[in-house]
Amino acid sequence: MAAERVVEIKNKQVLFKDYVRDSLESDMCITTEKTISLRVPEGTKGVVVKNLCLSCDPYMRNRMNKSEIDGFFSSYSPGSPITGFGVAKVIDSRDTNLKKGDLVWGTTGWEEYTFIEPTNALFKIEHTDIPLSYYTGILVAKAKKGEKVFVSAASGSVGQLVGQFAKLMGCYVVACAGSIEKVDLLKHKFGYDNAFNYKEEHDLDAALKRYFPEGIDIYFENIGGKMLDVVLLNTRNFGRIAVCGMISQYNQENHEGIKNLMEIIYKRVRVEGFLYFDYLLQYSKFLETVLPLIREGKMDYIEDLAEGLDNGPAALVGIFSGHNIGKQVIKVAHE
Amino acid sequence: MAAERVVEIKNKQVLFKDYVRDSLESDMCITTEKTISLRVPEGTKGVVVKNLCLSCDPYMRNRMNKSEIDGFFSSYSPGSPITGFGVAKVIDSRDTNLKKGDLVWGTTGWEEYTFIEPTNALFKIEHTDIPLSYYTGILVAKAKKGEKVFVSAASGSVGQLVGQFAKLMGCYVVACAGSIEKVDLLKHKFGYDNAFNYKEEHDLDAALKRYFPEGIDIYFENIGGKMLDVVLLNTRNFGRIAVCGMISQYNQENHEGIKNLMEIIYKRVRVEGFLYFDYLLQYSKFLETVLPLIREGKMDYIEDLAEGLDNGPAALVGIFSGHNIGKQVIKVAHE
Repeated sequence: MAAERVVEIKNKQVLFKDYVRDSLESDMCITTEKTISLRVPEGTKGVVVKNLCLSCDPYMRNRMNKSEIDGFFSSYSPGSPITGFGVAKVIDSRDTNLKKGDLVWGTTGWEEYTFIEPTNALFKIEHTDIPLSYYTGILVAKAKKGEKVFVSAASGSVGQLVGQFAKLMGCYVVACAGSIEKVDLLKHKFGYDNAFNYKEEHDLDAALKRYFPEGIDIYFENIGGKMLDVVLLNTRNFGRIAVCGMISQYNQENHEGIKNLMEIIYKRVRVEGFLYFDYLLQYSKFLETVLPLIREGKMDYIEDLAEGLDNGPAALVGIFSGHNIGKQVIKVAHE
Repeated sequence: MAAERVVEIKNKQVLFKDYVRDSLESDMCITTEKTISLRVPEGTKGVVVKNLCLSCDPYMRNRMNKSEIDGFFSSYSPGSPITGFGVAKVIDSRDTNLKKGDLVWGTTGWEEYTFIEPTNALFKIEHTDIPLSYYTGILVAKAKKGEKVFVSAASGSVGQLVGQFAKLMGCYVVACAGSIEKVDLLKHKFGYDNAFNYKEEHDLDAALKRYFPEGIDIYFENIGGKMLDVVLLNTRNFGRIAVCGMISQYNQENHEGIKNLMEIIYKRVRVEGFLYFDYLLQYSKFLETVLPLIREGKMDYIEDLAEGLDNGPAALVGIFSGHNIGKQVIKVAHE
């Protein structure tokens, strides 16, 4: 009787320590080591993957709050590994759509190896000529048509894409970021019509009036707080605010109050939140559009790579003070 | 040469005195008397009307602020009559679409007689079997389809219609108002599924959770402030907030900050402001729908009538403390 050999291996993990109330510090996690079987348990249908790179995203901060929200945005469990998007290689599979050696992206753990139970949220990567880590970020963007577009946090993972899409659509695009270096990137690499460093503007309202004398048609909201309040003052009639994130608020237990919501009435503004996973069915169409643009150099995508799982927590903390230039990614393994 | 006789008549007027900063008091106006010609001046194309009833609407408070907004919501001019919606009878006309004796509704002055320059915003009233003053209010409502509907300020001019439309569409409707008498009206006259007195709820969040254990699909926003903040906590995924007004804020120079806007992201909520005049082209269709409903008694419309122009300012002030039950109207003349 040939018993199947169970291969166990050491697995470094980044565990979530405990709920966070205010600012994120990198001691919210501890690194530990366990063993993991590289075989998918019999009777189950998942895959075991080797994680190659992991995504650092602002929403992860919110999962560190104690909350009762179910599902995708439920709180992390103290003592369990952080989870998030990642790119990984299949080591063993009982999923009929995936085989050993396939590259996938989806939700995985902050660890070297992860057993992923059957889920719809694991995608096979078909095009490996684009750096793999792009898959951790580029899918999140959602372009909107329009004329005068303002993008905040514009050198971040999502912001950098939004502005470029808007430019490709023939929009007037002005973006803001938090350093001269980033502003330079926005102007000269991404080719926006203009860009400014919000940290150097004493009067954000005046800044917006300078760049948008006729007002803003579309605001792509990544920041929240004061920025949202002044944007409301500067929207045009029938302006739209696509709410992707409010990173300025995530480290605050008491959120800033937004006072200019009455502008919504008189200007008939539409404010709408969205999450990438409502658009997963359009993902292949998105790739059809985006991959040629990247290959032909018509679109740039900038990453900020942290090397090694150990540097993960600090990298995640860094995005809340604008440490990253481009999408923050953690490189766990090279293949 | 038969000179045309110019008929001049005394014209009582309610003049806007000066900009208001905080709470509205009825001394924001003064009553005065001038003379007016009952003939449309030669070379112009307007109409002279005798005002029959005038509408008291919350947005009028905002026109008493000093502001630089142009157009429909521009500030009132100190020393000039208050303007607003009204129903009036044509006394003289050089407008080819209107003749002496026609009943019209549109923007008119708080005075006995008004010369109205040519404008698109004057509508001939074709159906006089519905009380005329209904025209000052009923056109503003805009029903939305959906399941679980919450209406605030639900016994006011707009709120009372919204909930009834939602009921006719088969929605579950819960509404709130500020007195037992109003709540009774909402439950027993309008037939809502439930209603509550928000002034008696110490914990609005708990109240909403009681009436909407599964959350709110559509919130029809008339109030703003705290109510909006707790509604955001209680919306369902893909909830919609139709923003019609924020009456709780109009008397405040510093508006309350809304803190729960992050809910918009995770629940993909759409918040959208609207103004009736974007829908004027649909007005005849609206009448086709609503007039039979009123005639057949399937829809109620409650008015709070103040008698006489002199009582206008106090009636307008009253709506900000919930003094009115139903739409507040000023009866200026009976015909």
